[in-house]
Amino acid sequence: MIEDRLKDLGIVLPPPPKPLASYVPAKEHNGLIYVSGQLPMKDGKLMMTGPMNPGDPVEDAQKAMEQCLINGISAASVVATLEKLDGILRLSAFVSSATGFSEQHLVANGASDLAVQIFGEAGVHTRAAVGVSALPMDATVELEMIFIRR
Amino acid sequence: MIEDRLKDLGIVLPPPPKPLASYVPAKEHNGLIYVSGQLPMKDGKLMMTGPMNPGDPVEDAQKAMEQCLINGISAASVVATLEKLDGILRLSAFVSSATGFSEQHLVANGASDLAVQIFGEAGVHTRAAVGVSALPMDATVELEMIFIRR
Amino acid sequence: MIEDRLKDLGIVLPPPPKPLASYVPAKEHNGLIYVSGQLPMKDGKLMMTGPMNPGDPVEDAQKAMEQCLINGISAASVVATLEKLDGILRLSAFVSSATGFSEQHLVANGASDLAVQIFGEAGVHTRAAVGVSALPMDATVELEMIFIRR
Repeated sequence: MIEDRLKDLGIVLPPPPKPLASYVPAKEHNGLIYVSGQLPMKDGKLMMTGPMNPGDPVEDAQKAMEQCLINGISAASVVATLEKLDGILRLSAFVSSATGFSEQHLVANGASDLAVQIFGEAGVHTRAAVGVSALPMDATVELEMIFIRR
Repeated sequence: MIEDRLKDLGIVLPPPPKPLASYVPAKEHNGLIYVSGQLPMKDGKLMMTGPMNPGDPVEDAQKAMEQCLINGISAASVVATLEKLDGILRLSAFVSSATGFSEQHLVANGASDLAVQIFGEAGVHTRAAVGVSALPMDATVELEMIFIRR
Repeated sequence: MIEDRLKDLGIVLPPPPKPLASYVPAKEHNGLIYVSGQLPMKDGKLMMTGPMNPGDPVEDAQKAMEQCLINGISAASVVATLEKLDGILRLSAFVSSATGFSEQHLVANGASDLAVQIFGEAGVHTRAAVGVSALPMDATVELEMIFIRR
């Protein structure tokens, strides 16, 4: 079903992202799948780097957030098949932000809206969106996730 | 009981805050209620905006943190009545901070101290307090919460 | 066993860190031990303060992250003996970062690598590493942890 929706949306899951360091993409505990912070890697490189500045349009950063979610679904699939994913409990959206950029919530909508498109009602989640001073590899966005396992 | 303490403290819960985007105020899983990051909205507007600078007094930001907690209790009440709230597991306190402002822990105390006033011993929680470069709508503080459900 | 590995690594756990405010070092719920954000305190003072700047070597900050993990293990021991600690579910690594410093993942490796040295396979965890604008008491790093209880 999730696979069908991904296909309908034209989304091809990448191979599970390799962690940049000594940790794992995903780990399960008591029915929850914790996923490590994902960067907007696509085809082996970051879709977007550098901080958001006041006045910057948010569309590209929203696309980057979408990619983080896609990478996170791929990461979750390391510990559970797609059909075992039963929704999303929580997203933490980090947006590299210069002082004065205050639309982190709009950027995070890239991931939130796609979550609902993919998972339907079960994709509705809680969320925090904050502006950080810098991210690994100068990525513009990072997304951490907790999925619910069926 | 929680209602009594809120009344004793002169706190009137606002209607559950509407999310700013495509996510929900609160979601429950296995006895925990995750609450989305709350801003210090009161009567429809932010109590405080802009970053904290070195040397700024912390009292106003502490009040703003109190409001985030109040809004979070209201948000939790979407998925469980107040009498089902059995304490707090974790608070994540984000403080918009210029470089050199280093009293995020004091700002976060606004929420932490009020949590114990409202919930008593069960309100004692774990916490992280960090300084971020910017927050949605230029809010000075944001608070994410995990409540324990009875 | 954990005690043996700590000894082998020459690590002496400090007494459980006192919280800087009205919260607790650790709280347990349903087999997970949440630990409050730890600063790199050693012998009563911070090992490292101030933000990381572009080009700064990461070794000292990695050592500071190691200390945060050590302090977190000590904090967890408030609610469970060391032999009850059965691994790590998630680390949140916050690195005080000037704009342009983009090696938060390398700094976080200080904690991640030590986690695996201490806990073996069970120490493998999920992780988010982000750069923040400032931290309490001007600390360079802060680490939040979720341990799994046996």
